[in-house]
Amino acid sequence: MTSALTIWTYDWVPEGPRGHVRDIRLRWACEEAGLPYEVKSVSFKDRGPDHIANQPFGQVPFLQDGDISIFESGACLLHLARKSEILMPRDPKGEAETIEWTIAGLNSIEMVSVPWWFIGLSGTSKNPLEDWMMSRLDRLHAVLAEREWLAAGRFTVADIMMSDALRVPKVLEATQKFPALRSYVERAVARPAFRKAHADQMAHFAKADS
Amino acid sequence: MTSALTIWTYDWVPEGPRGHVRDIRLRWACEEAGLPYEVKSVSFKDRGPDHIANQPFGQVPFLQDGDISIFESGACLLHLARKSEILMPRDPKGEAETIEWTIAGLNSIEMVSVPWWFIGLSGTSKNPLEDWMMSRLDRLHAVLAEREWLAAGRFTVADIMMSDALRVPKVLEATQKFPALRSYVERAVARPAFRKAHADQMAHFAKADS
Repeated sequence: MTSALTIWTYDWVPEGPRGHVRDIRLRWACEEAGLPYEVKSVSFKDRGPDHIANQPFGQVPFLQDGDISIFESGACLLHLARKSEILMPRDPKGEAETIEWTIAGLNSIEMVSVPWWFIGLSGTSKNPLEDWMMSRLDRLHAVLAEREWLAAGRFTVADIMMSDALRVPKVLEATQKFPALRSYVERAVARPAFRKAHADQMAHFAKADS
Repeated sequence: MTSALTIWTYDWVPEGPRGHVRDIRLRWACEEAGLPYEVKSVSFKDRGPDHIANQPFGQVPFLQDGDISIFESGACLLHLARKSEILMPRDPKGEAETIEWTIAGLNSIEMVSVPWWFIGLSGTSKNPLEDWMMSRLDRLHAVLAEREWLAAGRFTVADIMMSDALRVPKVLEATQKFPALRSYVERAVARPAFRKAHADQMAHFAKADS
């Protein structure tokens, strides 16, 4: 039996990114919603034309849904959200909130946190994105100090997106002054669907070593 | 008569960002689709609680649609796209392509180009994001060398998003080696809807000076 949904990821990655490759966002969403899916791999070391045809930036994940192929984890999350009310409410206001906070994860947080993290890797003494990073976390903290989940008064794909952006180890270290962000991430990763998705990704990459 | 749609922007900005404040993306989409809208302002200098309640990061734009308020220009574009087939095709494949390329503008291009631009402002001799920036432009160039618009074989909100990200002056300078990106931006900004949106934004901020 084949599933309609196939999540594509790499066949192997180094130890560092294991548990954080973005296919986890899609696995997590499918687990939350009980959507059947399978996982297939493209080569990490040799990114060929078939891969580029599905993901023009040579990254993962991309999602196959019947004859539709979609790249960008944020776009895949919004696509999956249309399949299950568990992932996004169906009323216009709840839907608008879910979409705006999913995009905020991508463009208000990751647009700063990912380059901030990347520059930090070089061990630079003064990260030029430090102040910007802290001001974004500060704003998000003000929001999450007042609510359990970001959109529509309950867990949605927006929380998959945002908590996955925040749980990157260096980013999580940077949230020390923001207790509401830390407890938000703790709530998110305690969910059974996250734990299953995380264990499955770790097993997927461990298998490649054997 | 009041419009159902209200685009909120700042009452004033310095000369530098005029013509590039992101309300232009929403104006442009409304002009393309013939959706009636009005534009209202929040204070640039004093970002009060009413502003933060609608845009928690203290930015603009945000969009009001009846009793729904949405922030993040990308989320507003996707919201507007559901109102008019002109902005996004209605078939599942065309819709998936429009969403993935809108998100690619936000998270594969702007996630690099905006911090790259920001760091460049400080006049640093070696921008730590330079190689990453060039590799992303190179990948996008390979796509746009083969097609006129990004998604579904025709102009969509994905092109509003992506071309607006690329037409930032310093980013456009960086595309010198990528002729397909330059001609893509030229095609986009030649559209009457862009020209109207741009002129209206310039007039909005000029009025604040008088």
